[in-house]
Amino acid sequence: MTRIAVLGCGRIGQMHATIIAGHPRASLAAVYDVHAPSAQKAADAHGVSAAGNPGEIFNDGDINAVLIATATETHADYIEMAVAAGKPVLCEKPIDLSLDRVNRCAEAIKGSDVPIQLGFNRRFDPGHRAARDAMRAGDIGDLHQVIITSRDPEMPPRSYYEVAGGLFRDMTIHDFDLARFMLDDEPVEVVAVGDRLIDPALMNELDDHDSAMIIMRTADGKQCHINNSRTAGYGYDQRVELLGRDGMVQSDNRKPHEIKRFSKTATEVAEPYLNFFIERYHEAFMAEIAAFVDAIETDAAPEVGFEDGRKALILAEAAYRSIAEKRIVRIDEIG
Amino acid sequence: MTRIAVLGCGRIGQMHATIIAGHPRASLAAVYDVHAPSAQKAADAHGVSAAGNPGEIFNDGDINAVLIATATETHADYIEMAVAAGKPVLCEKPIDLSLDRVNRCAEAIKGSDVPIQLGFNRRFDPGHRAARDAMRAGDIGDLHQVIITSRDPEMPPRSYYEVAGGLFRDMTIHDFDLARFMLDDEPVEVVAVGDRLIDPALMNELDDHDSAMIIMRTADGKQCHINNSRTAGYGYDQRVELLGRDGMVQSDNRKPHEIKRFSKTATEVAEPYLNFFIERYHEAFMAEIAAFVDAIETDAAPEVGFEDGRKALILAEAAYRSIAEKRIVRIDEIG
Amino acid sequence: MTRIAVLGCGRIGQMHATIIAGHPRASLAAVYDVHAPSAQKAADAHGVSAAGNPGEIFNDGDINAVLIATATETHADYIEMAVAAGKPVLCEKPIDLSLDRVNRCAEAIKGSDVPIQLGFNRRFDPGHRAARDAMRAGDIGDLHQVIITSRDPEMPPRSYYEVAGGLFRDMTIHDFDLARFMLDDEPVEVVAVGDRLIDPALMNELDDHDSAMIIMRTADGKQCHINNSRTAGYGYDQRVELLGRDGMVQSDNRKPHEIKRFSKTATEVAEPYLNFFIERYHEAFMAEIAAFVDAIETDAAPEVGFEDGRKALILAEAAYRSIAEKRIVRIDEIG
Amino acid sequence: MTRIAVLGCGRIGQMHATIIAGHPRASLAAVYDVHAPSAQKAADAHGVSAAGNPGEIFNDGDINAVLIATATETHADYIEMAVAAGKPVLCEKPIDLSLDRVNRCAEAIKGSDVPIQLGFNRRFDPGHRAARDAMRAGDIGDLHQVIITSRDPEMPPRSYYEVAGGLFRDMTIHDFDLARFMLDDEPVEVVAVGDRLIDPALMNELDDHDSAMIIMRTADGKQCHINNSRTAGYGYDQRVELLGRDGMVQSDNRKPHEIKRFSKTATEVAEPYLNFFIERYHEAFMAEIAAFVDAIETDAAPEVGFEDGRKALILAEAAYRSIAEKRIVRIDEIG
Repeated sequence: MTRIAVLGCGRIGQMHATIIAGHPRASLAAVYDVHAPSAQKAADAHGVSAAGNPGEIFNDGDINAVLIATATETHADYIEMAVAAGKPVLCEKPIDLSLDRVNRCAEAIKGSDVPIQLGFNRRFDPGHRAARDAMRAGDIGDLHQVIITSRDPEMPPRSYYEVAGGLFRDMTIHDFDLARFMLDDEPVEVVAVGDRLIDPALMNELDDHDSAMIIMRTADGKQCHINNSRTAGYGYDQRVELLGRDGMVQSDNRKPHEIKRFSKTATEVAEPYLNFFIERYHEAFMAEIAAFVDAIETDAAPEVGFEDGRKALILAEAAYRSIAEKRIVRIDEIG
Repeated sequence: MTRIAVLGCGRIGQMHATIIAGHPRASLAAVYDVHAPSAQKAADAHGVSAAGNPGEIFNDGDINAVLIATATETHADYIEMAVAAGKPVLCEKPIDLSLDRVNRCAEAIKGSDVPIQLGFNRRFDPGHRAARDAMRAGDIGDLHQVIITSRDPEMPPRSYYEVAGGLFRDMTIHDFDLARFMLDDEPVEVVAVGDRLIDPALMNELDDHDSAMIIMRTADGKQCHINNSRTAGYGYDQRVELLGRDGMVQSDNRKPHEIKRFSKTATEVAEPYLNFFIERYHEAFMAEIAAFVDAIETDAAPEVGFEDGRKALILAEAAYRSIAEKRIVRIDEIG
Repeated sequence: MTRIAVLGCGRIGQMHATIIAGHPRASLAAVYDVHAPSAQKAADAHGVSAAGNPGEIFNDGDINAVLIATATETHADYIEMAVAAGKPVLCEKPIDLSLDRVNRCAEAIKGSDVPIQLGFNRRFDPGHRAARDAMRAGDIGDLHQVIITSRDPEMPPRSYYEVAGGLFRDMTIHDFDLARFMLDDEPVEVVAVGDRLIDPALMNELDDHDSAMIIMRTADGKQCHINNSRTAGYGYDQRVELLGRDGMVQSDNRKPHEIKRFSKTATEVAEPYLNFFIERYHEAFMAEIAAFVDAIETDAAPEVGFEDGRKALILAEAAYRSIAEKRIVRIDEIG
Repeated sequence: MTRIAVLGCGRIGQMHATIIAGHPRASLAAVYDVHAPSAQKAADAHGVSAAGNPGEIFNDGDINAVLIATATETHADYIEMAVAAGKPVLCEKPIDLSLDRVNRCAEAIKGSDVPIQLGFNRRFDPGHRAARDAMRAGDIGDLHQVIITSRDPEMPPRSYYEVAGGLFRDMTIHDFDLARFMLDDEPVEVVAVGDRLIDPALMNELDDHDSAMIIMRTADGKQCHINNSRTAGYGYDQRVELLGRDGMVQSDNRKPHEIKRFSKTATEVAEPYLNFFIERYHEAFMAEIAAFVDAIETDAAPEVGFEDGRKALILAEAAYRSIAEKRIVRIDEIG
């Protein structure tokens, strides 16, 4: 059994803890949260102990690995501590909101072979992955275009925005990573537009965006479009489309079941989509943990690692520069 | 050009007249209706003459063929007159409500080689036909089961029921023919249940049914289910499903266009179905006329003829006997 | 915690054991199988003990309830033993292949208030249940017709057939129960046809059917069609359609994810369906166990009980008589 | 009857001629083509005369209107001649490949009230129009994002490219117009990327693109994405998606009929899409002619006119400048 501790007992940390506890070859070793009662509650739910501070976890020889689901500002520190302690780490995205801090973290852990997995769960979604597998198997011929539609069901609260670091670093970061995963290649150019359509007052005050469109190109001209909205109105919309020379494959949304309604005014009426990420990407989160456990057990490099987290952040930075300078930005201009 | 006269200028006769007028190798030669103003109106619309009586049409040497869309009770007479006049005929279903009359008509026209096509338009629907073509091409392996769903959008008026001859002779007759078309074989047994769920008072008074379910078997055990309702509530529902040893093919309903709506409470909401048969089977009616013209031009037997009309009526009679005697009825017990 | 023992450690028993072990308020107490190594293997997998005989389980005061997933011929005995021991029981279908034995069992347990739940898992499928909920909520108006399509992906082995008791008692029994669930009423008439289309030689030898169609009616004329096939070719096909006066609702099949492929020859190509019942009805099995636990905890009667198992078997018997006598059989003629 | 002459008897001119001939209140008056045999063939097919030169048509007092489907380089001249002759004109897109020439044409016809309709047929597609109608009716709340997917089934021949004027002026011009139609507003900024993925050698030689992605913004921040490919592999792909604050509406592709196939390896397999524009947009072309006839009869301004043609070309020019200068281009920088 791989004994994994979870740092951060918010909604996503609790979800990870439950998945770890249910994994046949892993167990939840301990939990920690800066807010002690939250840690205790999670600990009680799983019959494990709540650490009084992160050090207790990093120094505990019985703990084989850590999952970091704390506030973003602590991620880089905890990655460095985990690496120093020789404990494999699965860290929620992003590594940090500052590319400088990420680069310093990269420097600090340089040369280490402690496995670091980044929490880009969408790579593990069965549908998205099947689409990419189909592309890699040649089912659609050479890849030409990728379209990623990624829209949240509704605006998060103001408090969320205040620490999120901006649309591209918080929300689009998943899509930047998914784009790299689907393109199977590196974007070299980015152009972005960001707007304030849903809550202009709040977005202006926080200098953030609630709606965005992005185009990226790879060196050989493969094109990728991302569209984002903080409010889809009809639920959580997560689609990927891959166009190749010979065909197309799409990974579409998922409903809780397949009932369809028919009435005088409408036909084939399906249910609302799974809402929100914990439901929609439940299988992805399970597969993500399973991949982490596999990587630890087999001493293999995680499928998606630190450098993927850094590169997604570079794409976010490029998108912000594109908005500021109203031009297509080359990735090699960043970082 | 094949010059075709249309007898009967009701809704379906007018539709046929327009299709004939638009066919590249056919022309509308004349029209007739027992109600002279209706005939005149149709004649004016197409710039042709309105015959004062059917005889004018059957005796007109410039008329190459006739389409019969008059009241059911006249069909057999007009078929006999057309055959006597040597004019190919496309006759709306049913040949007659009485199997005796149909058998006498068969006797009367015995030995003639004048082409008679029955108006079983659904055989010409592109979707239904593609499903059958797929089956005959072996795409689903040996055929095992056929499911026909056939539901009208809403109850016809009382006046319609009074002359329609009962659910099985009026509405299900199309499905009996479609079953024979899809099975590519003859049913040998029929069992039916008929109920009065939509308007029990009217159905009781007229001794008719508004809802029915039927099962038929061929000699080698292929099974066919038909379900009928006079009111679907959500529109005109016309589906066929073919199950074979290796797979399945379905012919589904058709919408006017492919918009889908997404809201908080529903996703993938499609438009109401094409409603009613003139819209839903528009292409089928066009193909039916085209097949009639082809048959005349090439001196070929029509794809669907008098005997098909007779056999569909026999299935209707068997269904009525099944209801009366609450048992599975052998086709060879009828007529 | 409700401590539940599982009798029968075949595929379905193992599945139930895992679900029980994962339920937040239940635990697996012990297992038993007539084949001791199977029991031991299941016991080891869950860290529980394997009983040497059923009596050990029924007599164990620490065991609160039993799940019976043994061979059909033992079901009635174990139900009687469970009731005698005062242990709530969830028994896989059917209660017995013999209606006589079922009636004797009913007699034996008469007057007892020990909860007995029958393993009609499909009632707990989220899609099927949502369809029924929509109907009961009046979304489609008065119910008129029910269409149940239920086809297995491929023929089971000969050994399975030899003990299964015939298509209607083994496979259709689920659909008979689902029909009662969807009709929300009792069928009073049944007519059935059964054929040997997939493996005529084997079916003839065993006097069984591999393909069937059934029609049932309730006292007030609601109609229900069931079609069955032992081989669908394209996977496990489980659909329910409810037609009401004002609309329709369908519960359709489920795929592992929502990718669609597009090529020169085909569009919107979806994945094969979830195959087989353990995958397709996974959520249903979970909900079934949850309902059992709820019923025990709240001292409520199970949603689906012994009498439902008996009534489904009566429908199967009526279907067999219908085939034998080629007529519509009244339910009150049976048992 | 409105008597309409058709200039240009290529594939699209012939299609228009047939639609005009079939319109209940219009008739085909004459045809012209620079290649006399083509004109004669079209004339014979419809029983009308072939003009020896365009002047014969513009000077013919019995001709009420003209449809221009000749080579692009003649469009502006013929528009000017039609306006001078006082004949309403329906002109295929684009007005001209040169914005200068378009502007000179605008100058030349300034002050005239002769109706000019531009051949942006997609505005008349029932699905696209229903999507826009839903948006304007408030069904999705305030519009935020528009996604237009527009892909040809396969590369046109080299000869086509040589005169087409480049991807944006030839193909995307339809999407630029559709974007304006859907946005119900003017884009003020454009950014584009164009690549050579399908036939790099030919595209390099001709300095053209076969794959493109575009983003546009309106003054109030509504966003629009267009993606184009000269080869979709799976057919002609024409989709529009409108995201609003409260919901989404999509106009999807259309198949010849609704059969679905199911096999061991795939389910819900639909037919290839209607291919190519003459089939896919057949109803749109019919509605376009009907709107033209309506505008003439009622003396109303056509729904889509000269200025729409000019504005779509300006967007194309902006897209080219964006590619050249790798930046977001303001529309007011052009023309």
